[in-house]
Formats: sequence, structure tokens, C-alpha cells
Amino acid sequence: MDELAFTKGHGTENDFVVVADPDGALDLDDDLVARLCDRRAGIGGDGLIRVVRSDACRDAAAGAAHEDGARWFMDYRNADGSAAEMCGNGVRVFVAYLLREGLVGAAELTPQAPLAVGSRGGVKRVHRRPGPDGTPHLAVDMGPWRLTGGEQGARDGHDALVHVGGLDVARPGLSLDLGNPHTVVVLNDAAQLEAVELHRAPVVEPAPPHGTNVELVVMEESDGDVGRLRMRVHERGVGETRSCGTGACAAALAARTWAGAGAPDRWLVDSPGGQVEVRVLPGDRVELAGPAVLVADGVAHLSPS
Amino acid sequence: MDELAFTKGHGTENDFVVVADPDGALDLDDDLVARLCDRRAGIGGDGLIRVVRSDACRDAAAGAAHEDGARWFMDYRNADGSAAEMCGNGVRVFVAYLLREGLVGAAELTPQAPLAVGSRGGVKRVHRRPGPDGTPHLAVDMGPWRLTGGEQGARDGHDALVHVGGLDVARPGLSLDLGNPHTVVVLNDAAQLEAVELHRAPVVEPAPPHGTNVELVVMEESDGDVGRLRMRVHERGVGETRSCGTGACAAALAARTWAGAGAPDRWLVDSPGGQVEVRVLPGDRVELAGPAVLVADGVAHLSPS
Repeated sequence: MDELAFTKGHGTENDFVVVADPDGALDLDDDLVARLCDRRAGIGGDGLIRVVRSDACRDAAAGAAHEDGARWFMDYRNADGSAAEMCGNGVRVFVAYLLREGLVGAAELTPQAPLAVGSRGGVKRVHRRPGPDGTPHLAVDMGPWRLTGGEQGARDGHDALVHVGGLDVARPGLSLDLGNPHTVVVLNDAAQLEAVELHRAPVVEPAPPHGTNVELVVMEESDGDVGRLRMRVHERGVGETRSCGTGACAAALAARTWAGAGAPDRWLVDSPGGQVEVRVLPGDRVELAGPAVLVADGVAHLSPS
Repeated sequence: MDELAFTKGHGTENDFVVVADPDGALDLDDDLVARLCDRRAGIGGDGLIRVVRSDACRDAAAGAAHEDGARWFMDYRNADGSAAEMCGNGVRVFVAYLLREGLVGAAELTPQAPLAVGSRGGVKRVHRRPGPDGTPHLAVDMGPWRLTGGEQGARDGHDALVHVGGLDVARPGLSLDLGNPHTVVVLNDAAQLEAVELHRAPVVEPAPPHGTNVELVVMEESDGDVGRLRMRVHERGVGETRSCGTGACAAALAARTWAGAGAPDRWLVDSPGGQVEVRVLPGDRVELAGPAVLVADGVAHLSPS
């Protein structure tokens, strides 16, 4: 393989190299994925998304997704080439690509009959609707969530102490499980949020067994029945990122817990990479909605002379 | 303008968005350049190179370059959109693009009759020859250099003290002027070079009036009449980078100064981004040679829906 067609896209500046492989014919080994995701020697991205038909993908999860009615499978790979389960911002870019290419129709993306998308994290259901600014948003049912500390976390409003770089005093944090671990910390105001130091991971006590993503949030004035948050996030094993899909959900769910009875079920979360909307769904599920942008299309030269 | 064709290329992982504009028809304002160079929301690059005929470019330097026999002008822009003078790694990518597109012929790139390339830093002369590993290298006459401290710098071997993060003791540094300022510091060994902390700029005393790039080097065993260096670089106003063309020249020229009479005129310099070769030319000029890779070609969607 000398050349590889690609699309570059992002969801709130979480960016991806998208590779179409409907028939599962490509052999994208870890090295090649890492080369493509290299920001200087390659195309550059937080990860690579291979677009493959569920029944043409050898991954066990693709077989299960096919059984569950998902025609398309998101083979999501980290920038180092390793396989990953899912990515809340990536799935929007995946669906935006399917739409643009006519591989799915807009009629398959309604709230009543959302599109089933296969992933290693299970089948995700996606629909399209206008966002708060009128541009199209893709909304993804991210599945179940829970407070890691259960009822006690809800009662106390925190279950951890978090040491954040640049702050003299540890802050209380609330831990949530969205399939991956999060700890959410409130700061005083936007100036403090901007000033804190996220070059190093915040230190959480007690230390979560598998580490945790840390969301630093500032509550902003609600807009009617819509809550508002500003957030910065430190992703476990990665560092500070421009946005984090499950992190935005965790931040909104923590804020809703703190607000108590009568708190909004809809939240707008502003990260450095842009704004997403989080909705609490019945049955302790959560939905993440936001934009997806297809920035460029091209051909990568895999054996450059 | 809704769409813009681009090429992505790099020289030792100093990477660029290349835009062909032979007739000078494009209006690439600062905002658009910044959007294209954005690594997450755009294509991504350390800068943008517009390929334009000298007689079709309104820049005053292009007129002068045309007078001086340069048919092509490298309109080099920083990632924030601002105009820059020149880039030693970028000019190789520029010429690799001209060659691949047939805009210049290989016969125009000989050591005897090098290609004249216009830039805001003056006309640069470029030829092609095999590199030490046999792959094609492009060699650029980078122009004059001098020890900033003049004869005294040469006699003392240093003219500054440099505080590098992670080292307890300040180290002597030698300052050079290659059109931009450099201070070169020797470390003990490769392990120390790897361990030092370049998240923050090294502090140089006395402080150079316009700041300085700092090269940390380790001398390696010479290979016959070719000197060898390993280098990390902190670029003024940027941070640590994978490579720096003028920095590699400064490092080799400092090492040659320290080695004294009989020192090699050819040096191989290994940076994290790859290897370049530096040659000292007659008349206190210096030449930088290295690879250039065209990674991908594509179309950017400037008004994504």
C-alpha cells in the first residue's frame, strides 16, 4: 500500500484521521496508525477512526454490533495504534463522515429512530438535531453513569481530595463512572480556572486504582432550565486536552448532583475546544451532543520518496 | 474561497502546510493561515509555505529576489499567520515540492549551479546530493555566521552562563549569530541530554537583548573527518522543538570552535526529529543539508458545513 485516502475531522477540537474501509480490506497495523497520527511526520490526530461495515470487520465487537442492528462499526485507535473502546467526540466525526458520504441518510438519524453505531464500547445510538447556536449537532446516547461513591458520594457531594497545580489547598472532588473514571472539582471562578497548572496530573486522594480523568469546573449562571459550566480537563495518561466527551458528561452530572433537587437535566459545557450539550436521560443514562467538522480530505503517501 | 488545495511536508519533523499559488492569486490573511496551521481544528503545521513566482508576489523581497535570478519565492508564514523571514528546514520542503511538481528540474539543483530561492531572508541557493544514508538531501547555503562575542568568544570558548532546568550548576555557553541568535551549551553525556528539562526556557546570563535560541549538545565520536553531535533545542518564543535548522548550524559551528585547529568542517547533527549535515563553507558561510518529505496532498474545506 503506497497511498491511503483519508479525511481529517474534529469534534470540539478532539481530532481524528478518518480512513474509509467499508469492506474491511485494509491492514492498518499499529505502526502505520501511529505514523498517520504523528502530528509532525504524519497527518496528525488524537486517534484514527476506521470506517468499516460491521459484517466486514473481524473484531468480535463488530460481530455483536451487527447482531444488534449496527451496519457500521467505528474501529477507533489511539494515536499509538492501540485499539480503544470508544470516543464520545470521535463518534460524532464518524457519523458526520457517514452522512457526507451518503453511507447513511439523514432519515436514519432522528431522535425517534437513531442510528446504531458499533464500537468496542458497545452499540451507540446517534441522532441529529440543531444545537443551541442553530448549527447541526449530533447527539450520542453515552450509556449509563453512576456516582463511584454511590449514595454517600451524593450525600457528601465529594469522596476525594484533589491537589491541583497552582492551588495551595486541596479541593474536594466527586468521582463518577461513565465506563471510565472521572473526578470533578469546582474552582472559584473563571480566572482561577485559567490560572491553574495542568502540565502535571492533579493528585487525587485516595488514589483511584486505575487512575482518573480530572475535570476542573466553574459553575456559570443557568440559562432558564439549562445549566452552564466552564471546564478544563486532564485526561488520564494523556495530559490536558481541548475537550473530553465523557469528561463533559461527568462535569454536568457532578454539577447536577451538587445542585440537588430541581437541578436542570440539560447542561451546556464550554471547554477550550468548544461547547457541547449534556442531557440526563431516563434510566441513569446520559447523552452528549455537539458539532463535528470535516476539515480536509487527502491522500497520504506511505512510501514518500 | 471554499476549498484550498494543500500539501503537507516536513524537514526533520519541522512541518509545514504548503500551498501552491504560482500566480500570486490567493489572499491568505493571517487568520486563514492560523486556521490552517491549527493542529486540531485545521491541517496542522509549524508554519505555512506559499509557493509563488517571484514576479507574481507583491512582497518587496520577492521583487529583489526576482532581480537576483530567483524564479520562485518562499512566502513563509508562522503558525499564527505572521510573516517570517526564512526557515532552514522549510526551504528544503519548498524545493522538494517544486521538484515533485516539475516546477524546477533536477538539472537546476547541482552543486555547481544551485537553484536560487527567494525568501524574506534573502536569496538562498539550494542543490541536491545524496545524504550520508544514500537518500536525497537538499543542501542550502544558509549565509554568513559569526561568533557573537567575536575573538574573545573564540578564545574563551564561552561568553555566557546558562541555567538549564534539571541541572544544579550553570553551564558555559557560546553565542553565535546566524541571522538569529543562538547560545550553545555542552552537556556531559546522552543520558544528561535526555534528562534535562526544556519545558521552560533556559536562562542565559547576561541576558541577550532579543532573547536567544538555546542548543544543548553532546559531542560524539567523530567519523573520520566528519564530526558528530547530538542536540536538543529550545527555540526562542516557541519552546522545545524536534529540530531547528539554524540551531543545528550553530551547534556544529560551536563544536568546531571548541575543537580548535584541525576540527572537521563537516558535522552530522542528530536531533529528535532526525539528522542533518552542516558544512562550513569558505568565507564564513555555512551550509545545511537534510531530507524533505512530502507526506500528503489534500483539499481543505474552509467553510465546513
